[in-house]
Amino acid sequence: MTDSVPFYRIENEAAASAVVLVCEHASNAFPPPWEDELGLAPDQRAAHIAWDPGALGVARGLARALDAALIHATASRLIYDLNRPPHAPGAMPAQSEVHRIPGNADLSAGERLARTRAHYIPFHAALAGLLSERLARGTRPALITVHSFTPVYFGQPRAVEFGVIHDADDRLARAIAARDTGLNTRLNEPYSASDGVAHMLARHATPFGLPHAMLEIRNDLIATPEAQADMAARLAPAIQAAINEVG
Amino acid sequence: MTDSVPFYRIENEAAASAVVLVCEHASNAFPPPWEDELGLAPDQRAAHIAWDPGALGVARGLARALDAALIHATASRLIYDLNRPPHAPGAMPAQSEVHRIPGNADLSAGERLARTRAHYIPFHAALAGLLSERLARGTRPALITVHSFTPVYFGQPRAVEFGVIHDADDRLARAIAARDTGLNTRLNEPYSASDGVAHMLARHATPFGLPHAMLEIRNDLIATPEAQADMAARLAPAIQAAINEVG
Repeated sequence: MTDSVPFYRIENEAAASAVVLVCEHASNAFPPPWEDELGLAPDQRAAHIAWDPGALGVARGLARALDAALIHATASRLIYDLNRPPHAPGAMPAQSEVHRIPGNADLSAGERLARTRAHYIPFHAALAGLLSERLARGTRPALITVHSFTPVYFGQPRAVEFGVIHDADDRLARAIAARDTGLNTRLNEPYSASDGVAHMLARHATPFGLPHAMLEIRNDLIATPEAQADMAARLAPAIQAAINEVG
Repeated sequence: MTDSVPFYRIENEAAASAVVLVCEHASNAFPPPWEDELGLAPDQRAAHIAWDPGALGVARGLARALDAALIHATASRLIYDLNRPPHAPGAMPAQSEVHRIPGNADLSAGERLARTRAHYIPFHAALAGLLSERLARGTRPALITVHSFTPVYFGQPRAVEFGVIHDADDRLARAIAARDTGLNTRLNEPYSASDGVAHMLARHATPFGLPHAMLEIRNDLIATPEAQADMAARLAPAIQAAINEVG
């Protein structure tokens, strides 16, 4: 689709385990041709609207602990939110929480198409390839996406620390949420598939009957590399046990 | 995924209408590196086990009548059945109806992976791209796959002439089946999603909430180019009316 540098990266591609990790909101970078940073202020580019702070560090820790492949974005979700289909308003949002996104105001169909071609189509093709290759080899991959959420949203503090969200098949998500990780854990919080956040799972896990879960970690708990490593070490055994349980 | 010649072709890519047609069993060709034809006899290569006879002719007629894009395979379904995921036994079947497929006996994991990389992954990436681009442009495509079936299966004649099959959303399929085309028409016959035949729809329509239908035409009715053109002319108004109805 695009022959330029892709806006994603695959790590640990030849990993031994069948687990495939996705971190679609890994980055708050604005690589070329996005040097104008969509007109955002520095504090906006650092905030949760531009990415999921801490999520990539946790995902990398999980990739090591679970010997899993990891695919992650290398550009901000505000350029294209890879967890939204191209027709969703949230794919290239003109507003995120209380923030107006100047570079996303009044996007033309041509601009939406260009971003879809540059970001969405190649990322999803690469992930589909990773999963299909594992299926062809006779393994049944578990698809786990790694996200973080803001502790305060529209001024309201959130008590939940760790949310586990599922698409059609709830088994792996329930098994992960049932494990004791010492965290305030909730199923389908702070949001659920009905909020339109399960696109990645609906595209890549459900059509293949693959076990899946979307992990949501409150970002104040993973603000430093040390906290991210600690969180990965805390979650990895719970995830591995849940995968073994679901089979 | 693969840089060699793809085993699919896209026609009428810039079509004005939002309809996207798929003909995954269009071909009984065995292009390089499949010159050994999987060890099949000439009558086997001509039979319905190798392809859906007549389906491509109908699909091309529909593409013209509906001004729709069409993606179709250029290699036999016995090399890789694009309507099956890589882990399905039917993706590279060692037996099809009463026929043993010598070149598919005891396939290694490496061979399954190579065929998945060469056939399945690029075809589905291309189709996903076609659909995503239409969504980005603000149109909501209808996904229609075009198949044919054998009038006699395991020795049993089939009375149905035109089957319409759906995945999760039955609306477009029901609307097409309800139209009078003069054919013996049945919903979810001669098989249905529960037989594992709806993979294409489950991957590309259902996750995006797109209207979809799999058309199955008895192949004795479309044995010649003239019959294929007649069938396309008969079905196109029914399909267009059904799309308009479902919206």
